[in-house]
Amino acid sequence: MASLQGRPPWMANNGPAKFEVTRTVDMMCHPLAASLKVAGETADARVDFALAGLTGPIPEAMKYAVRGGKALRAFLVLESARLHGINSARAQPAAAAIECLHAYSLVHDDLPCMDDDALRRGQPTVHVKWDEATAVLVGDALHSLAFQLVMETEVDAQQRFILTHTLATAAGARGMVGGQAMDIAAETAAEPLTLDQIMALQMAKTGALISWSAMAGPRMAGDKEHQLRIYGDCLGLAFQIADDVLDVVGDAATVGKAVRKDQAAGKATFVSLLGLDGAKRRAQDLVTEACDALSYYGDDAETLKEAARFVIARGH
Amino acid sequence: MASLQGRPPWMANNGPAKFEVTRTVDMMCHPLAASLKVAGETADARVDFALAGLTGPIPEAMKYAVRGGKALRAFLVLESARLHGINSARAQPAAAAIECLHAYSLVHDDLPCMDDDALRRGQPTVHVKWDEATAVLVGDALHSLAFQLVMETEVDAQQRFILTHTLATAAGARGMVGGQAMDIAAETAAEPLTLDQIMALQMAKTGALISWSAMAGPRMAGDKEHQLRIYGDCLGLAFQIADDVLDVVGDAATVGKAVRKDQAAGKATFVSLLGLDGAKRRAQDLVTEACDALSYYGDDAETLKEAARFVIARGH
Repeated sequence: MASLQGRPPWMANNGPAKFEVTRTVDMMCHPLAASLKVAGETADARVDFALAGLTGPIPEAMKYAVRGGKALRAFLVLESARLHGINSARAQPAAAAIECLHAYSLVHDDLPCMDDDALRRGQPTVHVKWDEATAVLVGDALHSLAFQLVMETEVDAQQRFILTHTLATAAGARGMVGGQAMDIAAETAAEPLTLDQIMALQMAKTGALISWSAMAGPRMAGDKEHQLRIYGDCLGLAFQIADDVLDVVGDAATVGKAVRKDQAAGKATFVSLLGLDGAKRRAQDLVTEACDALSYYGDDAETLKEAARFVIARGH
Repeated sequence: MASLQGRPPWMANNGPAKFEVTRTVDMMCHPLAASLKVAGETADARVDFALAGLTGPIPEAMKYAVRGGKALRAFLVLESARLHGINSARAQPAAAAIECLHAYSLVHDDLPCMDDDALRRGQPTVHVKWDEATAVLVGDALHSLAFQLVMETEVDAQQRFILTHTLATAAGARGMVGGQAMDIAAETAAEPLTLDQIMALQMAKTGALISWSAMAGPRMAGDKEHQLRIYGDCLGLAFQIADDVLDVVGDAATVGKAVRKDQAAGKATFVSLLGLDGAKRRAQDLVTEACDALSYYGDDAETLKEAARFVIARGH
């Protein structure tokens, strides 16, 4: 086997390595800010562990791309898992997975041939800090890592299957990428989009991953996902309306990315179609609907309700 | 729920739809050309089915990108499955998955910021026929589709887990993307790569997916993968050496993509390091080693042996 001496030791694959965590069962409801911070740190730690031993620009830029966000999606995974009796240690890989998938989409969306953005989360985008080829590969590697991680969620095989399969459909041509393609097509369309079309577009582009995150808990537990599906769908739309509002009223330094881009491009948005006040009211109605859907969980869901209110009150 | 009327019907996710196939148990060994043709048609049909109902440039370009290749990886999946008693109908999703993953990597590798190729499989590359943004999204959507499909392989949950998890690691920063990054780094390195470095690079860049394909059968069946691991590793390297030879002796019309690029870039290749005859001999030795590893399967493995010989005799 002299011909194969070049095989690097890290190519051996004996299944996922063991990520050791202290298994405290934390079924307490915590304030939002603390929960988001823990979710972000959890995702970062998992990604670091998955990339341990790798050096060079790709793993370095992968960690860079995952860091510094709100970690809203990881939080939704951990919180919906907690509501369904799945402790953090078991849900952490899925939380890290959705942050990797989200980060890949941002890295690719920021490319010059896509939205051509130089600023993301208040930092230079990956293709600016490194280069375009690195950004393409970093997005691709984060995309694969998301599926590696979600498969490491410590739940029954059937539940892991549902989590992984729904993540693939939420991410692909029928979900996030489909929405992104509709968004690009809208830029050159003869007519601006209608409200229904924008809602369909945004529920795919932004909503699919947010809804997946909110439904992760019941899916891990094999429970009904109905309440958290309504919550996630409403939250995703409210989130996008808030983004459109921020694009009009925010400043780049606070928002952490370029603003006033939609207006300059003459794109139809929730604000252009509903007016600024109308868009804010619609977002508020969606948050109320999201919170109502959680009444089933009682006080236990307080942090998720706080998250819904935060989504439309945030400055970034 | 008036606020959610914009939800398009295709966003409903009730698990994988049923793909109906005639369940003939075909345990016969067929000639290579016929087997490759069937593998390609199988992958194409599965991708068409997965994209049914979607319209627009993304699904259209996804189908375009998957078509027209040799379907070597899909063939390896189906053939190694057959050797382990898994019939074609059960293995088809995994065969389609690896072709989607391979196609995504080609679409992204061909981008102007990567290899900047205008020709692939004798046709215009996706970013030439459509545009760069479409090519980025098409690669991303094929990447997600690969994980959707591999999860639909009709084997036990534990086997499906191993298939999917190993596909994610083979594709990511420790596999294909890692090798691609090493390849890009080599272009600007002060010293040309050594033979050991090129072998490590190629076993990640090209080898990881080929080995995964060859090992898919025993992994589906829960059998030992040792023999097919050796076969796949040797085949992957032989394949890449043959690619380097074709880059020197082939013409673009036959090869189906640009040639003489490595030489022009001053890159170290198997040919530059071993000479043309030395490279051909090394490829022949690897094919012998690959075929020897299959002796365990007797005459049943004749088509896989034919594939190994084809890999170094091919003109494209």
